[in-house]
Amino acid sequence: MALNQAFLTSLREMFHPSQLLTDTADCWLYSYDNSRHRAVAEAVFFAKTTQDVQTLIKQCRQYHVPLTVRGRGTGTPGGAVPLQGGVVLSLDKMDRILLLDPQNRLMKVEAGIVTQTVQNAAYEKGFFWAPDPGSSAYCAVGGNIGYNAAGPRAVKYGATRDNVLGLTAVTGAGDIIHTGGYTTKSAVGYDLTRLLIGSEGTLAIVTEAILKLHALPQKKYAFRALYKNISAAIAVVIAIMSQPYLPSALEFLDKHALKLLGFDSGGAMLLIEIDEENAKKNILAACQHEELIDIHIAKSDKAREKLWKARRELSSALRMLSPYKINEDVIVPVTALPELLKTLDELSQKYDIPIVNFGHAGNGNIHVNLLAKEAPECLQEIFEAVIALRGTLSGEHGIGLEKKPFMPFALDQSAIAIMRGIKNVFDPDNILNPGKLF
Amino acid sequence: MALNQAFLTSLREMFHPSQLLTDTADCWLYSYDNSRHRAVAEAVFFAKTTQDVQTLIKQCRQYHVPLTVRGRGTGTPGGAVPLQGGVVLSLDKMDRILLLDPQNRLMKVEAGIVTQTVQNAAYEKGFFWAPDPGSSAYCAVGGNIGYNAAGPRAVKYGATRDNVLGLTAVTGAGDIIHTGGYTTKSAVGYDLTRLLIGSEGTLAIVTEAILKLHALPQKKYAFRALYKNISAAIAVVIAIMSQPYLPSALEFLDKHALKLLGFDSGGAMLLIEIDEENAKKNILAACQHEELIDIHIAKSDKAREKLWKARRELSSALRMLSPYKINEDVIVPVTALPELLKTLDELSQKYDIPIVNFGHAGNGNIHVNLLAKEAPECLQEIFEAVIALRGTLSGEHGIGLEKKPFMPFALDQSAIAIMRGIKNVFDPDNILNPGKLF
Repeated sequence: MALNQAFLTSLREMFHPSQLLTDTADCWLYSYDNSRHRAVAEAVFFAKTTQDVQTLIKQCRQYHVPLTVRGRGTGTPGGAVPLQGGVVLSLDKMDRILLLDPQNRLMKVEAGIVTQTVQNAAYEKGFFWAPDPGSSAYCAVGGNIGYNAAGPRAVKYGATRDNVLGLTAVTGAGDIIHTGGYTTKSAVGYDLTRLLIGSEGTLAIVTEAILKLHALPQKKYAFRALYKNISAAIAVVIAIMSQPYLPSALEFLDKHALKLLGFDSGGAMLLIEIDEENAKKNILAACQHEELIDIHIAKSDKAREKLWKARRELSSALRMLSPYKINEDVIVPVTALPELLKTLDELSQKYDIPIVNFGHAGNGNIHVNLLAKEAPECLQEIFEAVIALRGTLSGEHGIGLEKKPFMPFALDQSAIAIMRGIKNVFDPDNILNPGKLF
Repeated sequence: MALNQAFLTSLREMFHPSQLLTDTADCWLYSYDNSRHRAVAEAVFFAKTTQDVQTLIKQCRQYHVPLTVRGRGTGTPGGAVPLQGGVVLSLDKMDRILLLDPQNRLMKVEAGIVTQTVQNAAYEKGFFWAPDPGSSAYCAVGGNIGYNAAGPRAVKYGATRDNVLGLTAVTGAGDIIHTGGYTTKSAVGYDLTRLLIGSEGTLAIVTEAILKLHALPQKKYAFRALYKNISAAIAVVIAIMSQPYLPSALEFLDKHALKLLGFDSGGAMLLIEIDEENAKKNILAACQHEELIDIHIAKSDKAREKLWKARRELSSALRMLSPYKINEDVIVPVTALPELLKTLDELSQKYDIPIVNFGHAGNGNIHVNLLAKEAPECLQEIFEAVIALRGTLSGEHGIGLEKKPFMPFALDQSAIAIMRGIKNVFDPDNILNPGKLF
């Protein structure tokens, strides 16, 4: 489908040539993300201001052109794929820090800023922003907001939704709205901030965000605990989550993941980080189990960093093992982890598909990696099991295209109808990321 | 306006007589809350189940009867006043604990349960629910959810919105929806949980809630610090909030509030609670100031409880001082507190109205008590100042009737239009708490 020429002409009249690409080769580069999906847009637009976004949306509305916003394309479920063509909106040029205010524990940024840039700036002042997805070095804050990204620290500090105070956004109707604000709480009407977080670019384009910061801990302790089998490791996860102190990370790796990291023995490992002195005694005690093989404590910052580097590299290591990988990120209550992992083992055998499991065990959030090109029936059984265990489809990756067919498993029809109604309020002409979520 | 007899007959056919009161004397008891407003409903309905609520809403829709849900009537801005008559829905009979699951750090309750009952049950298992409004002993969890209630602990643990994982609710269209769930994070469509929290009964009737629990701290430390003047006390608030450790409470009292508590000297006081050992040194150091008069540490649990009891009794003590009291709860970024308090002092003089200020200084949330029957111009100037300081109308009390006229000060017209659109999606016939918020 070629774009309406009058639409393109109107944009060319309003913006600098560098803000609009229409060559197929250029568009191709913005046509995919970290899912296996691709759909080619007819134009790529680079916004420099919130007003640019507003103007673009108004033109898209007028000419009925679909608009898909893109962070840095690191998302796995396909949310940034321009399914119906049209325009891809990049916020790469909106990457400034607008305010860094440690006394009020907040930072205001443009949505195109890379997450690590935020962390570096906050670090200089003695603070950090809690979300820490594996792709922090490349992904954008806007993408974190779109998907409600999380990461290991979420077990103690929450996900993106728990760490944003306010937003500036442009709705699908072309209206600029400001949600939330500079205060740490408020009780003034409906919470549009959290509604936009996790909405995957379907309601409004977030252009600026006020981020809630936490003070850097005085000290961090990290260690790995190796167990003979999964049930021992998961019993320890439950024991850790039942005592008073929350670890700042509680990651689980199964034996397949361990092999990728070069461990030949052991059935499961926990990687644990603690950022308060008091928690050490309790958490180390909770790690004891008769099927514990050993505990290895990172003695230096460098050793600690090495531990986490290995964890971060698991995803790419998996790609070496198999050309195909279906990466799910289901989540269940922590006490349902033993049953979930047992079911995954049974399904792996039933469908003869290797499944590698690791993830944020403290949240009950497991990255289930099916080493297969396609596995629709196995996936369906996994999601059914997760729902039966009071869990849900995604802990932090989102729905996008990949998990769209499974939404009715997780949500009431009436809740989906409400969501569709809300979509229609924000985006009456359905121009924002059409074909996603529902 | 008398209720349609066919409507009443239909309810009488479907429910036990004890579930429906229509005597004027009975209705009178459910016609007011802790605001100064009153409007008499024509019937009071006591739901026992979510299905009861659904049936009631469907009948209200059919007969166009307004429906106002009521917690325990402790709210101050008038949200529970049945402005347009109709039916008041009480959830007092829905007060059960459905699940208490310490291993997953959650608790599922019916919305009519009293907040203190939740705290007592959680305490038995070594946990607590973070929201702690001054009315905890009387108010209902459903009311806390309606207003996004908070309290002193919010400075460290957040408000209601930060401490609820999922909801069961019945929309104004009569559909039962389940939002969120039993997991500590999720990325599955729009966040309807947080959207309903703080929506003041205008979108849906929340009947059940899954509450996020925190482990009880091993030890608490409480002390009061008396300063010669407000500027010293607020400088210390900013110093405390700028260092790494968050106190679990950081309350401020001005000299008028101090007098009510029997302190004849001193210009301002901070009441501080710390629930982690490590924080003591830093926070006590931050309390030092050349205009510090003294620090008094509560040496026992009993002494600590006495300190907080005095704080809790401030509101009722104020009622002794003046027959009239306008109780606002504006919020600004912490660093804007000096300017806010200076402005309040100037307005007190300008309008010759005594103003007593105290509140949750760590959140920048000040309870501004105007000892006057009416003060519309002064209030308007207060809200204008708060907005200019990047704050907002309410930190935890909500909007209800009282602050409805000021909503356009705090929100964009386009954001209000979005909120009205969302209201229409949930409640197409505008039967739920009509006339509130907007």
